[in-house]
Amino acid sequence: MSETFERAAEQIVDAGRRLDARGWAMAGAGNYSVRLADGSFAITASGRHKGRLQPSDVMRVDADGASLDGRKPSAETLLHMAVYRCRPGANAVLHTHSVQGVTLSRAARREAIVLRGYEMAKALPGFDSHEDDVVVPVFENDQDMERLAPRVDRMLSLSARTPLFILRGHGLYAWAGSMEQTICAIEGAEHMLACELEHLRTGTGAAT
Amino acid sequence: MSETFERAAEQIVDAGRRLDARGWAMAGAGNYSVRLADGSFAITASGRHKGRLQPSDVMRVDADGASLDGRKPSAETLLHMAVYRCRPGANAVLHTHSVQGVTLSRAARREAIVLRGYEMAKALPGFDSHEDDVVVPVFENDQDMERLAPRVDRMLSLSARTPLFILRGHGLYAWAGSMEQTICAIEGAEHMLACELEHLRTGTGAAT
Amino acid sequence: MSETFERAAEQIVDAGRRLDARGWAMAGAGNYSVRLADGSFAITASGRHKGRLQPSDVMRVDADGASLDGRKPSAETLLHMAVYRCRPGANAVLHTHSVQGVTLSRAARREAIVLRGYEMAKALPGFDSHEDDVVVPVFENDQDMERLAPRVDRMLSLSARTPLFILRGHGLYAWAGSMEQTICAIEGAEHMLACELEHLRTGTGAAT
Amino acid sequence: MSETFERAAEQIVDAGRRLDARGWAMAGAGNYSVRLADGSFAITASGRHKGRLQPSDVMRVDADGASLDGRKPSAETLLHMAVYRCRPGANAVLHTHSVQGVTLSRAARREAIVLRGYEMAKALPGFDSHEDDVVVPVFENDQDMERLAPRVDRMLSLSARTPLFILRGHGLYAWAGSMEQTICAIEGAEHMLACELEHLRTGTGAAT
Repeated sequence: MSETFERAAEQIVDAGRRLDARGWAMAGAGNYSVRLADGSFAITASGRHKGRLQPSDVMRVDADGASLDGRKPSAETLLHMAVYRCRPGANAVLHTHSVQGVTLSRAARREAIVLRGYEMAKALPGFDSHEDDVVVPVFENDQDMERLAPRVDRMLSLSARTPLFILRGHGLYAWAGSMEQTICAIEGAEHMLACELEHLRTGTGAAT
Repeated sequence: MSETFERAAEQIVDAGRRLDARGWAMAGAGNYSVRLADGSFAITASGRHKGRLQPSDVMRVDADGASLDGRKPSAETLLHMAVYRCRPGANAVLHTHSVQGVTLSRAARREAIVLRGYEMAKALPGFDSHEDDVVVPVFENDQDMERLAPRVDRMLSLSARTPLFILRGHGLYAWAGSMEQTICAIEGAEHMLACELEHLRTGTGAAT
Repeated sequence: MSETFERAAEQIVDAGRRLDARGWAMAGAGNYSVRLADGSFAITASGRHKGRLQPSDVMRVDADGASLDGRKPSAETLLHMAVYRCRPGANAVLHTHSVQGVTLSRAARREAIVLRGYEMAKALPGFDSHEDDVVVPVFENDQDMERLAPRVDRMLSLSARTPLFILRGHGLYAWAGSMEQTICAIEGAEHMLACELEHLRTGTGAAT
Repeated sequence: MSETFERAAEQIVDAGRRLDARGWAMAGAGNYSVRLADGSFAITASGRHKGRLQPSDVMRVDADGASLDGRKPSAETLLHMAVYRCRPGANAVLHTHSVQGVTLSRAARREAIVLRGYEMAKALPGFDSHEDDVVVPVFENDQDMERLAPRVDRMLSLSARTPLFILRGHGLYAWAGSMEQTICAIEGAEHMLACELEHLRTGTGAAT
């Protein structure tokens, strides 16, 4: 949270390269943000492929998601702001579009995906044992962010724990106290989702 | 469309590296083209692996696919020309050979693959909601391009929308208004095909 | 075993990059160690992502896993020490979190995974034919290393052969006479586990 | 075939990096060779991981596989020599260990895997249509190369066409008129095997 805009922009550029190399930023989809020390936020502008960001592809918005530099933020900026508002400990948010996240959320008609018995749960802030269940809320996808953001906001107010949610057929959001921790959170979550997809493929369930 | 040949050749070389890194240019298969400002086209010549192109591996053809520089174009040049003829907004065409595209087109005896409910549809030019169905025509593969190109031409004249088609057991074609947008279109399409293959594997269907 | 700390730290940094590139160090999970000539050990400290280690992320512990440089070792250091104690020929230990290792160990309620008929068995020290069965013990995961380490210790004392074990829902441990050989052992083991997962997916069994 | 040893060693080093990046040289398994102008052969010596070869990891053997430089060739050198003896047009041989090759050969009890209806067949020398069936012989794996090489030799004498064979539970061999063409042949073959594995996973068959 003591980040300067310049440092945050570098972290976002680097995160884009890393997530794209994993195959989770196909078509440049997704968006990434960092909370700045002055209460504003650095967030990817639309346009460039996330695997090839430049610092100039990062813009600045206020806590309502309004532009502070004259550029037009993407509609999903509102979801990032809902996270920052409800989670004071969140200082970076990453949003990926992976095959496992999209497929599992479409295959499951449930309102949440439960990740149970994974050591990798410990990659999430606040989880320190494989015996902690990770309950990932699944929201119906919506092009209207003015309608979707309050639903996310409401859920985050109710459930204090999992630093993750999924938009059905769309992708995963993750957050943590720093960009490096958020990269660990999203990698850990995508790994567990990939394992869940294997269980679905092989007709096996959690062993625990 | 204001591209010079030199700039187009660079874009094609770069696209080859990117698509090969995704595993969609195995054996150097595929071909890539760009529409030039003077109405001619830059297109990959046969020979070099697509992951290791040099600008000198790109040749120039006219709107009928005839060579403008004495080199012999590949037979599939005719399919690129059919796209440029029927789609004035198309300024770059990419053709990949992915495991998901090949397998799905072989598994499905249908004449089209319908991608429904994916946020990633928005990676395609002209699609702005996950509620827009993406209908991808599937053609029977044919070594005779004089016979195949008119079939593609006819389909493109009828259906004004999807910037994609698949040749069965062969691969995917995509196009858009610029090379960067075409890379997003093909990555988005391959991502959705990969998800569809997961649905086929897991016996689940679209949730939407 | 004639390694200096500096050389061991370089090997560990390099191993992290290699295993992360395979996708087996998601969220920076895992830990890596090398036996030093003086009877102490170099091992990754907690904190940095394993794909981006610096030599300064490697610490030094004694044979009981106690810190020799004032830094706090991770709890799993005790498992590395159990391996070094029971296997005098082990000079490097690697621990990965792969989708195949996690899923197979969760799907199988067995106490061991048997890899049968693989040429790749020869990547493991002491195995020189595809006709040698590789029996990989599976332990229940446990956050209490004081309780888990003696179980590993006991198993290693009984079975003199396979340089591998799996923690259920957690990941794989491998060791060999040098870091380079341990990388081959873990790559060979992960390859065989990936093949076993395919057999589970396709409902086919070992052909041999 | 007009290759110098130095050029051949460079090609082999480069092939190792490329095949390892595909995940087909896990644990450094596999071996690669090139026919030299003077009738001798450059081939990988045992030892170093194939993704990290140096020119000094390549040795020289005669047409019987006997060392010409005092180093000990690997046992599988005999299989390379069987290919060169029976196929005068083969100037490079590559041998990979992929998950798809190993799993399919273990799942299928057949003596051959038939690849039917793939455009990618054209990546193989002598195949110019997706209507050409690619029949890949499958041999039982054997640690005794003196026994296995004559079986390969006999098969190659009978069937003049496919530049591929598989050792069950072990991996794929491919060859062509140059190293670059052999890379295309093995990439094309691995791509088709990956598609066949998808058909097996999804319970679908070839559409053609």
